[in-house]
Amino acid sequence: MAKHVDVVLPEKKGSWLTYRPDIKVLDCTIRDGGLVNSCRFNDDFVRAIYQACVAAGVDYMEMGYKGSKDAYPPAEYGCWKHCSEADLRRIVGDNDADLKLSVMADVGRTDYHTDILPKDQSVIDMIRVATYIHQIPSAVDMIKACHDKGYETTLNLMAISVVHEQELEEALEILCQTEVGVIYLVDSFGSLYSEEVQALTRKYLKYAWASGKQVGIHTHNNCQLAYANTIEALILGASYLDATVSGLGRGAGNCPTELLLGFLKNPKFRVRPILQCIQEHIVPLRKEISWGYDIPYMITGQLNMHPRSAISFLDGATPTDYVAFYDSVTTEE
Amino acid sequence: MAKHVDVVLPEKKGSWLTYRPDIKVLDCTIRDGGLVNSCRFNDDFVRAIYQACVAAGVDYMEMGYKGSKDAYPPAEYGCWKHCSEADLRRIVGDNDADLKLSVMADVGRTDYHTDILPKDQSVIDMIRVATYIHQIPSAVDMIKACHDKGYETTLNLMAISVVHEQELEEALEILCQTEVGVIYLVDSFGSLYSEEVQALTRKYLKYAWASGKQVGIHTHNNCQLAYANTIEALILGASYLDATVSGLGRGAGNCPTELLLGFLKNPKFRVRPILQCIQEHIVPLRKEISWGYDIPYMITGQLNMHPRSAISFLDGATPTDYVAFYDSVTTEE
Repeated sequence: MAKHVDVVLPEKKGSWLTYRPDIKVLDCTIRDGGLVNSCRFNDDFVRAIYQACVAAGVDYMEMGYKGSKDAYPPAEYGCWKHCSEADLRRIVGDNDADLKLSVMADVGRTDYHTDILPKDQSVIDMIRVATYIHQIPSAVDMIKACHDKGYETTLNLMAISVVHEQELEEALEILCQTEVGVIYLVDSFGSLYSEEVQALTRKYLKYAWASGKQVGIHTHNNCQLAYANTIEALILGASYLDATVSGLGRGAGNCPTELLLGFLKNPKFRVRPILQCIQEHIVPLRKEISWGYDIPYMITGQLNMHPRSAISFLDGATPTDYVAFYDSVTTEE
Repeated sequence: MAKHVDVVLPEKKGSWLTYRPDIKVLDCTIRDGGLVNSCRFNDDFVRAIYQACVAAGVDYMEMGYKGSKDAYPPAEYGCWKHCSEADLRRIVGDNDADLKLSVMADVGRTDYHTDILPKDQSVIDMIRVATYIHQIPSAVDMIKACHDKGYETTLNLMAISVVHEQELEEALEILCQTEVGVIYLVDSFGSLYSEEVQALTRKYLKYAWASGKQVGIHTHNNCQLAYANTIEALILGASYLDATVSGLGRGAGNCPTELLLGFLKNPKFRVRPILQCIQEHIVPLRKEISWGYDIPYMITGQLNMHPRSAISFLDGATPTDYVAFYDSVTTEE
């Protein structure tokens, strides 16, 4: 066993009248929102989110995915599924701002040897490697490659609400031996509540802090707990906090950036630019695409299931026949 | 000082694989929802909520207010603002069900000597006395009167997020000397988050348990924390849990009954009848009246303000000019 078992975790990190400089807000509106519309945001919208993040003091903005063009043909997906350097620079130029940029790279669906350039040729600051637990060996390879190219890295371990505790601990142990900077607690199904988030956050922190890493939190709003769970994790010591403007994201969406910035005490954060972005760009977008809490998402969340059946049901002919959906998912064998 | 300071509170009440028989769910859809439409629900809707609550195993249903007809003229308010015996019985008959009925009586706006009948003449089981802290002496009189008439009673102390701690403790001490059965922690402005709810719940429990009373929780969803805060309080030991179907209630609304029933483990609770009620009665109602989380409610919640300015703004000509609202409430002197 590594030495991390000896780490003593505080009851909470921070106090009422101070702020924690380790807290980093990562806005992933364009990336998680891209799962709603196959990454087909127009440049005006992406630029508006970028400018709002800069003005609001957000620390990182996730511009999209580094998806393989074989897995995601450009005819079917917008450019934020691939995040070429040209597309990024069309929005951010040389990104002459305090805001750092990240992209997400899914294990097995990214040609990272070719598509991720050496850092000195890219405007990207951080690569976030998203993995399921059975892909950990590939994730470790990707972390090493991205780190060797000069990037900050995070590891986002998905669907942990269906992972056995011992496997999770083995995964954390392996990840702590890599050069990854941040390990993310990801509630993919929006199924966790406070006591579970607390227990998992403590577990992640124990491993991470013993090896000099930070813990992040990424939540979904299936049970109206995305913001609440983000707060739970940050109180205990998680420091990388994912959020999206108006909660824009697949299915029930995410922790809203505006709620999170309104809660945090660091005076560098300003909620007003996010509000301006919402009224000018999110209000019209709601007429084109749908996201956010709805009963079918609650049902899959409480059953600890992937939301795909709920998304499909809400796209169907009888989206408010909640009883039919409930019966269909609770009587499956 | 009373003996309550000696009560030792457990870290949490209950465990993962059991349920707590002390937990009571109180559905106040008609009562809190009545603040959206001046209590003008038609009989079909009230009957649908009643039947859903009975079928779902809900413990109490709040039928409305016992408001004075002087303060609330029947020409301006629906019958659920007064809850006459005839109106109640038109829906529930003799209420031949396990579901108990409550009404809310606001201190200073209820002619309780005349309008609250002796229990043996009424289908009502419980009177919930709602009070601000400066009205505590009147509230104590009302509790005594209602208890003497034969009712269960609760005391709902409102707007505590703007009450000083010492005054709150004095109020709790006075209330513990009454015959009230349940003391409610009420987050009137939807401004509390987990750490505050935990501290307040512990404080209420310390006083209540020392005098043989229970603690209840009533939340609002201004910051998307109504359900989360309800869970926080129940984990520590609060046992009377307010909720409304689809969160129907003033402004940002309340903790949704369907989320709460899906969380609780007592097999007597069934979420399916609530889902049926939502698709048949709430979906059409959303075309007539509006409630639920919106940016202006987030702003008043985070500023610890009454939501009335947000309600008024959302009723106005530019309901999505969030920046104008933000500027108006943050620059007031």
